[in-house]
Amino acid sequence: MAKDGRGSDGLRGLLRVPAGTPVDLSSYDTRATPGGPGHKAAGRAAVARMGKELAGLQERLWASSTAGDRRRVLLVLQGMDTSGKGGTVKHVAGLLNPAGCRIKGFKAPTAEEREHHFLWRVEKELPRPGELAVFDRSHYEDVLVPRVRALIPRTETDRRYDEINRFERLLADDRVTVIKCFLHISAEEQLRRLLRRLDRPDKRWKFSPGDIDDRALWPSYQQAYQTVLTRCATPHAPWYVIPADRKWYRDWAVARLLLEHLRALDPRYPRPDFDVAACRARLLGH
Amino acid sequence: MAKDGRGSDGLRGLLRVPAGTPVDLSSYDTRATPGGPGHKAAGRAAVARMGKELAGLQERLWASSTAGDRRRVLLVLQGMDTSGKGGTVKHVAGLLNPAGCRIKGFKAPTAEEREHHFLWRVEKELPRPGELAVFDRSHYEDVLVPRVRALIPRTETDRRYDEINRFERLLADDRVTVIKCFLHISAEEQLRRLLRRLDRPDKRWKFSPGDIDDRALWPSYQQAYQTVLTRCATPHAPWYVIPADRKWYRDWAVARLLLEHLRALDPRYPRPDFDVAACRARLLGH
Repeated sequence: MAKDGRGSDGLRGLLRVPAGTPVDLSSYDTRATPGGPGHKAAGRAAVARMGKELAGLQERLWASSTAGDRRRVLLVLQGMDTSGKGGTVKHVAGLLNPAGCRIKGFKAPTAEEREHHFLWRVEKELPRPGELAVFDRSHYEDVLVPRVRALIPRTETDRRYDEINRFERLLADDRVTVIKCFLHISAEEQLRRLLRRLDRPDKRWKFSPGDIDDRALWPSYQQAYQTVLTRCATPHAPWYVIPADRKWYRDWAVARLLLEHLRALDPRYPRPDFDVAACRARLLGH
Repeated sequence: MAKDGRGSDGLRGLLRVPAGTPVDLSSYDTRATPGGPGHKAAGRAAVARMGKELAGLQERLWASSTAGDRRRVLLVLQGMDTSGKGGTVKHVAGLLNPAGCRIKGFKAPTAEEREHHFLWRVEKELPRPGELAVFDRSHYEDVLVPRVRALIPRTETDRRYDEINRFERLLADDRVTVIKCFLHISAEEQLRRLLRRLDRPDKRWKFSPGDIDDRALWPSYQQAYQTVLTRCATPHAPWYVIPADRKWYRDWAVARLLLEHLRALDPRYPRPDFDVAACRARLLGH
């Protein structure tokens, strides 16, 4: 494949987790830049260049929905604290028309949310036809946190993987393009980023002492993610592992994956369902 | 006041509808550029320059909400078809981090929405603390369309103005900064824009033959807007009339109004509620 990620299956083929194969995260290099531009400046420039095409495809997807096209996109971002989920929203979704974006950050479930099935709060935030929804954390939190903290029995976690797969299958059948990105950073990079959050007064609000507790559970979280990637990478809702120690590569890769998926959808402006000439004449009072 | 809109009360003072004074829309020049840069290129450049400050203020407002600050902003955009509500969302909200934006376009009420009070669907879309919500159309549609089309008795419309004022008072008391912008175009400019939508295949999806019917009711809509501006311009939820025949001025003015309001809010990064040095030591394993 070419250096810019344009192989037969593009960057998708390069970063996609093969369905049905056990994943070993330690075999992934978090500083790698597969298929990407060689360095930061080129990466940032490439993202800016993609912006125009992405926005154009987004507008066509939206326009098409006004004529009954149900297609829509769901981008799921998962990763450890500081892995760059928020930064990806800012730099990638920020390239698009906000009117067609539905950005949702999922936090610890509220009391009301805990009364419902774990997918209840997710269903409410799904993209409507023509929209791109971005989830900063998602239903995958419900097979990560409870498992790592042993809040639910392992049989329950097992059941949830299957429920997620069935849920995402329903979405795909209903014409949702599901793109799931695991932003993969190293423990060393996380330490650097957490220290930076502590040291910079304009970053401190992003820090919580609970982040230190979660960091202490790093190996358990990596294991939980491995199981997620192994059990829930499906042909209809693939997982992509994004090396995320380099922020510019992370943004480039997610933008590029989104671009490849939107190009494949190839949305078109709808043909008018009214008589253009007659409307023109009416407007001009003829 | 200075040419760039920086008087004692800035552009707000210049464009704000005086509370309690009857409004005559025909006295407003839709091609005027009050307080603005002299021409298109300067206007576009000024908007781009404002982007960085707007995004910085937005981040601080968001950061502050994580420490309990309930303040948030609601930007309401109203105007005739083609007045540029969508363009304003794209060019002004597009300057911000989409994670902190809640963009909602209100269409004709659904069957479910009609079963409820007209404010029901609006309440669900209000900004959460730290957010900027932008309404492309709003609860004002419910005192415009039904009045112009005589769908409800005049006494009911009268009651709705009062309900809107009380509703917006509740919002202001709950620390919502309400900014209402009427994008004011001329009938001639609308004709040009509707024809452009018909002529350009990539714009046709925005056109609906119903737009011609609404255009035929132009004088009634202008009257209905005049009543809205007269009855619902309050100190706690002011209306601004934005001359909108020039798109660059419209974007500049809305961005500038937003900037002035955010500057006045002066949000700050919160002080940490944890011991920074202790967290640093824990992270480093000391």
